Amino acid sequence: MQAGGTSREAALETLRDYTRDLPPLAAIQARVAAYDGHRLRLTAPLAVNVNDKGSAFGGSMTSLMTYAGWGLVTLQLQQAGVRADVFVADSTVRYLKPLYADLCAEAMLAPEQSWDLFLATLAQRGRARIHLQARITLAEGHAMPDKVMADLASRYVAIAKG
Amino acid sequence: MQAGGTSREAALETLRDYTRDLPPLAAIQARVAAYDGHRLRLTAPLAVNVNDKGSAFGGSMTSLMTYAGWGLVTLQLQQAGVRADVFVADSTVRYLKPLYADLCAEAMLAPEQSWDLFLATLAQRGRARIHLQARITLAEGHAMPDKVMADLASRYVAIAKG
Repeated sequence: MQAGGTSREAALETLRDYTRDLPPLAAIQARVAAYDGHRLRLTAPLAVNVNDKGSAFGGSMTSLMTYAGWGLVTLQLQQAGVRADVFVADSTVRYLKPLYADLCAEAMLAPEQSWDLFLATLAQRGRARIHLQARITLAEGHAMPDKVMADLASRYVAIAKG
Repeated sequence: MQAGGTSREAALETLRDYTRDLPPLAAIQARVAAYDGHRLRLTAPLAVNVNDKGSAFGGSMTSLMTYAGWGLVTLQLQQAGVRADVFVADSTVRYLKPLYADLCAEAMLAPEQSWDLFLATLAQRGRARIHLQARITLAEGHAMPDKVMADLASRYVAIAKG
């Protein structure tokens, strides 16, 4: 936590409010499950995200991964005490295996990316980019909790406010 | 319409039923708007797909584009009288402009792709791939109806049933 920043718990509480209040996230019943300062984990029930084959709808998996990345950037900014709008710029998703269970999405920095550099660039230029990766795994408690059902590589842009 | 195939209108009616009944599509209030035999157009209201900035949530745009592509493949198969499961394999999406209006997604074949070849491969091997493209535009009636707010390139796999 830097000067002017928000504690991890307070930032997480704000994200929980967003997640509950934003209509498309309320619609897929997204929930903030865990955040260790580096990785953000969200969940959503299969029942409201099911496709015609009884497995998780690809669009819901991508929504949840995209939002997990957005949430991670937002948490980092809040903890650093920076006010900025965060936009997703582009992403590539691979659907690897059909998922017949609740959705669990986890977002983290892509390799060789740095929050310090991102925040420094944002402070200096008012705008910065960051590459993240996200994946859909089986939730904890399943036989193979680390099995990846889908993954996403994406780029987010932050634009400083006022 | 080939022998054993379903008429365009009957196939479209089936897709309308899916769209209404599948929970994640009902959640974003997706609607089948138009299909001319080549392009499938879906819509969804901004109000239930809005993000923290008052514009369309990226995840909803991608869900709608991904489903539009799935729907287009499904319509082509039904019209050809082929029973197959359709899966999205991967996709790349670019978020080009914030959209402050209802979502309109359109899916079509990617350049140099052929439905005839796709159907012939599926008949021969029981499995086939097709590349599609989709985009989010302003709905008809806006000043610039062809303005692209997001686009998506994706690959779908069909696996013949029984």
